[in-house]
Amino acid sequence: MDILNIITKKKNSEELSLEELKYVVENFLNGNIKDYQMSSLLMAIVLNGMTDEETVNLTKVMIESGDVLDLSDIDKVIVDKHSTGGVGDKTTLILIPLVASTGIKIAKMSGRGLGHTGGTIDKLESIEGFQVKLEEDEFKKQIKEIGLSVISQTSNLVPADKKIYALRDVTGTTESIPLIASSIMSKKIASGANIIVIDVKVGNGALMKNETDARKLADLMIKIGASYDRKVVCVLSDMTEPLGYAIGNGLEVLESINLLKNNGPEDLKELVITLATQMVSLGKNIDIEDAKNEVTTNLENGKAYDKFKQLVEYQHGNIDKIKISDNILSIKSSKTGFIKSIDAFSLGELAKLLKAGRTNKDDIIDHSVGIVLSKKVGDYVLEDEELLKLYVDNIVDDDDKKVILGKINQYFEISDSSDYNKKLIIDIIS
Amino acid sequence: MDILNIITKKKNSEELSLEELKYVVENFLNGNIKDYQMSSLLMAIVLNGMTDEETVNLTKVMIESGDVLDLSDIDKVIVDKHSTGGVGDKTTLILIPLVASTGIKIAKMSGRGLGHTGGTIDKLESIEGFQVKLEEDEFKKQIKEIGLSVISQTSNLVPADKKIYALRDVTGTTESIPLIASSIMSKKIASGANIIVIDVKVGNGALMKNETDARKLADLMIKIGASYDRKVVCVLSDMTEPLGYAIGNGLEVLESINLLKNNGPEDLKELVITLATQMVSLGKNIDIEDAKNEVTTNLENGKAYDKFKQLVEYQHGNIDKIKISDNILSIKSSKTGFIKSIDAFSLGELAKLLKAGRTNKDDIIDHSVGIVLSKKVGDYVLEDEELLKLYVDNIVDDDDKKVILGKINQYFEISDSSDYNKKLIIDIIS
Repeated sequence: MDILNIITKKKNSEELSLEELKYVVENFLNGNIKDYQMSSLLMAIVLNGMTDEETVNLTKVMIESGDVLDLSDIDKVIVDKHSTGGVGDKTTLILIPLVASTGIKIAKMSGRGLGHTGGTIDKLESIEGFQVKLEEDEFKKQIKEIGLSVISQTSNLVPADKKIYALRDVTGTTESIPLIASSIMSKKIASGANIIVIDVKVGNGALMKNETDARKLADLMIKIGASYDRKVVCVLSDMTEPLGYAIGNGLEVLESINLLKNNGPEDLKELVITLATQMVSLGKNIDIEDAKNEVTTNLENGKAYDKFKQLVEYQHGNIDKIKISDNILSIKSSKTGFIKSIDAFSLGELAKLLKAGRTNKDDIIDHSVGIVLSKKVGDYVLEDEELLKLYVDNIVDDDDKKVILGKINQYFEISDSSDYNKKLIIDIIS
Repeated sequence: MDILNIITKKKNSEELSLEELKYVVENFLNGNIKDYQMSSLLMAIVLNGMTDEETVNLTKVMIESGDVLDLSDIDKVIVDKHSTGGVGDKTTLILIPLVASTGIKIAKMSGRGLGHTGGTIDKLESIEGFQVKLEEDEFKKQIKEIGLSVISQTSNLVPADKKIYALRDVTGTTESIPLIASSIMSKKIASGANIIVIDVKVGNGALMKNETDARKLADLMIKIGASYDRKVVCVLSDMTEPLGYAIGNGLEVLESINLLKNNGPEDLKELVITLATQMVSLGKNIDIEDAKNEVTTNLENGKAYDKFKQLVEYQHGNIDKIKISDNILSIKSSKTGFIKSIDAFSLGELAKLLKAGRTNKDDIIDHSVGIVLSKKVGDYVLEDEELLKLYVDNIVDDDDKKVILGKINQYFEISDSSDYNKKLIIDIIS
């Protein structure tokens, strides 16, 4: 086998065999296939696609590139959740203690954020002292004792994905449904869960910009899961405006705690309950209605919050010390009217600029900064009324302020009409 | 400007601006744009194409990446010739002394062979002592004195093309009409000629596998030439069977000398006269008929051969010492019948295997080895009659012989019918 022949096949839109994909992944990992050859192949895959069979096979060889976690000694049923990434998406922080509070075991490995979307691990690290690195035995012990643990991915879990993803990120080859599906599913399968609920975000703040692509991705992930005997459910949810009000690590933890104390935003609550219902229904093999009742009760009666406090305590965090900047800028509206849309992508980019997120993998982020919206889509705003607050660190001099102020108003579409489209849960596919 | 945005634009089939192409070429040369980013962009160009304007602009920034030769102190009219590369294509060796013998100045910079096609510089180096490296002043002095010089490309002539071509070669991104056109034309324009005749080879032994692609390439090169006020004529010629009988460096020099002595193959003679006629007609601004008479006369009366001898002498070669192996294997036909086709590509690959050509840029070739056909398309062959001779160095043991023998017969399509298609000159486009 020869990488040039393989690139040429894909360039000519031919299907690659399992053996060819295995050759590519193994030889890219050991350095025989060079970065410049892999990026050429990746661009050919982005433009010419992959069949479902190729994607299943790619996922298989990615999984086999590293360790596969065996959690069967903890429980027969292990439930995991994944989000394809959105702006202000703090769902996991609320969802996992909520589901764990119903008695289901949650073994969660999460990633750090890159680009305009955040990562659960970064959010948890804005809680002072929170340890995201545990050895496998500590991780398992904690799940046995309190039903829940969240750690950052270990380095030998799908090492091929790490190396390929790093290359995709700098070569303009991130936007590919088969590559996204195999990247997500290889990590989820190697992490050991047998029930996987995936929040597929749709809209300009998400990787999937439209519903058609989101459905394709969902179908493909369900198919890959089936080939490994894993039950996969995809919830398609809107990501045209940020989820909740807060964007930025410490600010999102605070908003999550507020929801766990039954005092959070409605859209976030709706999404958490939808996802938790799926996880509990599948995990306990009970009706959707019964599952929904159980999770709603546990969210509202404080059981989920108790579980969250236990998680933070077990992982050495101090829940009373969350990093939030006290340097706040208020941004006012330049118009009066109804907010028809909010540009989630641009707000994500703005948060990144404030250093709440990373442009490059090695960037150091500031957990204390971010954005808190004062208005959401459908709200009425007066000229000079506050649109949002910026929690900043270093961007405070007057010139910067003007530039930011001038741009932010463009992210809000304000109209005379109170008509707007807003539907958070688009579909549930299984 | 940012390479990721540029890659994404091309991925989305958008046109790149002159400024963006300049940014890409400059930053790739200085190392700011990495190989893996360039190869991703190249694959996007291969698959999504470039407009004519983009190709003209790419050629421009490639030319500006290095030196541009000014030959106006030698003559107002400088004629150059290029071939897109074929199997057994020794045309240049005969053509340039022939055209120079009519009084036209030829300043020829040639390349080495890579893959299944040969390079003029390699062929000349099979003449013992022949020097292919001359300083610019020596090069010019020789052209002034004898009207002709052939050297290998200097390192600062279109350095961007060298670096991009080396990357294309190892990333499966060679097959792209805009990239081929800009690579050829940037070198031809930077080499200083104002009349450029290009032999565009068509067929399985050539880069352009079909006439449609060959015409597209020709049109594009003519358009690029026009934007630099260079007259470009493209001759489309067949490359389904090897040109002449010999394939391999020393063997091709010998066949060329035979034609210069009026004792060469008809197809080679026809192509040489066609190309020389165009060059002389344009170079002297005379009728095609007059030009054809002049070149035919000079080829047949020995003037072209005298010029060749002078060229070899000036560049320190010994025309009586041409490297040719005396280790010869005869390959016999397994069938009786008319030869309907000969697979030029596979014979080119076979010659490469014998070490007449290079797989990698740094491979050392053997000038003495190669293939000499005993039959051409249209000939009748008896079972056990010789199809070709192999001039070999190391592949002589019995097992290798059997493998080679078994395969070679597959390259000859032999049929009962004497019908065949053979038309050497497909078209002349200007």
